[in-house]
Amino acid sequence: MNTSNTLFEKHRATLDAALAALSARTYYSPYPESPRAYAEDADAKAKAWISAVMNNNYTALDQTGANGWLGEEVSPFLQTGIGVQYPNFAPEALIANAIPAQTAWGKTSVEFRTGVLIEALENIKNRFFDIAYATMHTTGQAYMMSFQASGPHANDRALEAVVMGYKELTSVPSHAEWVKNMGKFDLTMHKTWKPIAKGISLVIGCSTFPVWNTVPGLFASLITGNACIVKPHPKAILAIAIVVEELQKVFASNGVLVQTVQMGVDTLDKPITKILAEHPAVKLVDFTGGSEFGNYIEQLPKTTFTEKAGVNSIILDSVKDLKSVLGNIAFSASLYSGQMCTAPQNIFVSKDGVQTAEGLVSYDEVVKGIAAAITGLVDNPKAGPGTLGAIQAELTYNRIKEAKNLGGELILDTKAIVNEEFKDARIATPAVISLEKSQSEVYNKECFGPILFVIKTDGLADSLQLAEALVKEKGALTCGAYTSSEENRALIADTMNNAFVPVSFNFTGAGFINSHAAFSDFHLTGGNPAGNASFANSEFVSKRFVWVGNRLMD
Amino acid sequence: MNTSNTLFEKHRATLDAALAALSARTYYSPYPESPRAYAEDADAKAKAWISAVMNNNYTALDQTGANGWLGEEVSPFLQTGIGVQYPNFAPEALIANAIPAQTAWGKTSVEFRTGVLIEALENIKNRFFDIAYATMHTTGQAYMMSFQASGPHANDRALEAVVMGYKELTSVPSHAEWVKNMGKFDLTMHKTWKPIAKGISLVIGCSTFPVWNTVPGLFASLITGNACIVKPHPKAILAIAIVVEELQKVFASNGVLVQTVQMGVDTLDKPITKILAEHPAVKLVDFTGGSEFGNYIEQLPKTTFTEKAGVNSIILDSVKDLKSVLGNIAFSASLYSGQMCTAPQNIFVSKDGVQTAEGLVSYDEVVKGIAAAITGLVDNPKAGPGTLGAIQAELTYNRIKEAKNLGGELILDTKAIVNEEFKDARIATPAVISLEKSQSEVYNKECFGPILFVIKTDGLADSLQLAEALVKEKGALTCGAYTSSEENRALIADTMNNAFVPVSFNFTGAGFINSHAAFSDFHLTGGNPAGNASFANSEFVSKRFVWVGNRLMD
Repeated sequence: MNTSNTLFEKHRATLDAALAALSARTYYSPYPESPRAYAEDADAKAKAWISAVMNNNYTALDQTGANGWLGEEVSPFLQTGIGVQYPNFAPEALIANAIPAQTAWGKTSVEFRTGVLIEALENIKNRFFDIAYATMHTTGQAYMMSFQASGPHANDRALEAVVMGYKELTSVPSHAEWVKNMGKFDLTMHKTWKPIAKGISLVIGCSTFPVWNTVPGLFASLITGNACIVKPHPKAILAIAIVVEELQKVFASNGVLVQTVQMGVDTLDKPITKILAEHPAVKLVDFTGGSEFGNYIEQLPKTTFTEKAGVNSIILDSVKDLKSVLGNIAFSASLYSGQMCTAPQNIFVSKDGVQTAEGLVSYDEVVKGIAAAITGLVDNPKAGPGTLGAIQAELTYNRIKEAKNLGGELILDTKAIVNEEFKDARIATPAVISLEKSQSEVYNKECFGPILFVIKTDGLADSLQLAEALVKEKGALTCGAYTSSEENRALIADTMNNAFVPVSFNFTGAGFINSHAAFSDFHLTGGNPAGNASFANSEFVSKRFVWVGNRLMD
Repeated sequence: MNTSNTLFEKHRATLDAALAALSARTYYSPYPESPRAYAEDADAKAKAWISAVMNNNYTALDQTGANGWLGEEVSPFLQTGIGVQYPNFAPEALIANAIPAQTAWGKTSVEFRTGVLIEALENIKNRFFDIAYATMHTTGQAYMMSFQASGPHANDRALEAVVMGYKELTSVPSHAEWVKNMGKFDLTMHKTWKPIAKGISLVIGCSTFPVWNTVPGLFASLITGNACIVKPHPKAILAIAIVVEELQKVFASNGVLVQTVQMGVDTLDKPITKILAEHPAVKLVDFTGGSEFGNYIEQLPKTTFTEKAGVNSIILDSVKDLKSVLGNIAFSASLYSGQMCTAPQNIFVSKDGVQTAEGLVSYDEVVKGIAAAITGLVDNPKAGPGTLGAIQAELTYNRIKEAKNLGGELILDTKAIVNEEFKDARIATPAVISLEKSQSEVYNKECFGPILFVIKTDGLADSLQLAEALVKEKGALTCGAYTSSEENRALIADTMNNAFVPVSFNFTGAGFINSHAAFSDFHLTGGNPAGNASFANSEFVSKRFVWVGNRLMD
């Protein structure tokens, strides 16, 4: 085992900058989010790479003991299987591999792990374009989001977890001389403290953000000394496979057992997730996905970190410039066809309308304005396809097509638009439905995908009460609010914050409620039914290890 | 509400010193542990106080809405009821009082709460002698332990929780300007963060350490903005009642709703603990007590902090001076008649005996030596009664008397000794039983009270394996080990630490494995079956609140 701290010294400046950002919560990222910041031929190489990978066995994972190959991913852009097959492992084989890896990895120093993991992130950076195409053809995210969310933004979150881990793991000294004066003599003890990893960590991925939602838990578990098993969604494996591959390569070249991270794949018909999650050797479970399975995970007698479903609201009270606000909402709702956990679904608007700098705009005008803003965006051939991407799951697609039958007044139906590059892409634009406040059976649940409900309320207090009740029952990742009144802003902030939901006020232009920035915004609060985790508060790492102290006399 | 930070400034030096100690983990305490450090007449005043309190209603709590009085405490020193009656509240009344208090307390600043809580600890310091007598006559602890454990040592732990809370609550800034360069323009957001208290906190006390085990959770919940309901053990109310009284007084004089902390008492026949614990408004539960009830608490869908039963082992390998080692073990086992959660129960000794500086001492000689050391201690009229104290519960007393029938070879039976001051005290000295390693049905469970099992093993590796297996199954608070070999020390440390148990090596003289010092030793690791909490790691406070951040554009 290479226990030198060469890699720690190599990445010390990144660590220090990230630690400073985490404390100040100002903007920070060492991984540029623009594809143009990278090598000119990177995109072409990645296109060639994905062509070669499709319809082939994925042989780049350094795992032994497989019994066959499997894979059933489908490209939402091509609507055909991508034909990638991954090695298939019995759950017991994964656990058996992880145990010795855990023991060895847990013994390495915090500095060593920090260096190795930041090195891995540097290497993953060189695969951002591969990861982008892998994300596109499994999740249906458009190219730019695939690149940014699974590449630099995911790396940011992974680095954040590593750095938060470093901070927590170094918050207690390795040793101290403890001297207590007992009057006539001193009582002296030599004390030492060690953070002990809890055990094997299972990280369960989702179908829409296979990298962004997996790496926080994965890197948090690794920095704290736990061996990890990544169990991706059966329909979104390829992008995270690259991450596992790069981690294994860095481990191999630094004397770390490659089984410190393993990938265990399965199919919808023969899932292995519960077998792994319930295994006594698995002590930590990270999960992103539906609430029903998330609730099952949370009740396991383990340390769990969940992100489940939620219903995000926007409260429209008063605005300066309505057009820019409606444009912003339209984009937030259209981005990746509303398949983001942070996409808005419910827009609460007073029956009296919305106050603007140019006077009061009626409820009906506001609803029509939202529909018009969406139509303007999706019908723009330069912006529409790249914003919407494709629909990841057939189930989602079918739900959207039936949106017109949900109840209320259909203001704008979903439709298909043409993606010139991918003629067969599964595309659906957002539907807009106007609802009475009494129709809570329609809007008080998550309708995953591009569906916007505009709910006619009795005024701000009513809007707020409805949004608050919804959050307490179903949870939310975010809340948007527009108000020109400081008093109302304080009221909205207080109410939603006390229900453990963050609020984004008066977002226009390039600021979208969907986006949570690493080192600054917590993703999830962990306090409402949308999940028990928060990326990355101190608990997100501290729950993964145990402080143990020894005392020596003489 | 007094929101000035006068008290924060008053106690800033204490906060800073405590923060420094918490980081360095060196010795620190602002509350002297010697009764002689306090006013000369303090003890006499406390004696007068307890005489006046006994057989009276406890009217010092500032709580309204009581329906009658109750109390059934019995002094283990007098073996008669102490006759103190406390106001009786319906659980719903306690919750109804707590809700508005929670809202107001949660809105105060971290600095304000820090100042108020350290002020409360200063005032509690003035009640240390009252608390000592209250502890004696409910728990059976001898005078010195009653004073130290419920007074200065408890205050240390409470201050530790406050300071750890302050550290965590100030780890995220209140606001930041976040500026992201987007190429042609900057995206700017004004961000704010707030720690939001989770909700009402229930702190369930135990019968043996009613203050020491209650104040960490109580002060951790208070510093993080939660209103608290203290539910003491029905047999050990009086000492913690003083703490609640002093908190309420400080709250009242600083404009805080006194219901921010309330005491809810019950009787063994009509317990209210489950009603409170299961109430939806109760979000946090701290518990100290038996494993069965602790396991019930842990499975509640709440944030829980438990200290349950465990079995503490001593591994005797090799020593310099056997006499000082056996004397140390005898004291650890006799202190408060083995009723400490950190008292040793199982002593693993090789059948080949123990290597000492003067040569090998046989197993039989070691066992006899332990018995002789105990006899020497308990038969010493100056040391015995003050070390043993009295047996808190009749159940414990009856168990000890039957120790001779547990199996194995009875080396030393329990007996009564005379306490000149309290002739009727319920006293039992430690029994020593020698067991074969095959008799695990006897030693692989907690026998609460003064019972020492010496287990004859095949050698160090065997001792260690037995101790490790026991910890994994039943949990432990601590482990003692004696070895002159560095290699063996590393082996013992690795093995026990990986089972999440701390080890105290070669303790002699004034160092006892029973004692965990605030600001330095974690009490419990939270990683083994003896409990899920650790006093006070960062989680012990961070789990009690939620970070919520807002973002504002314009």
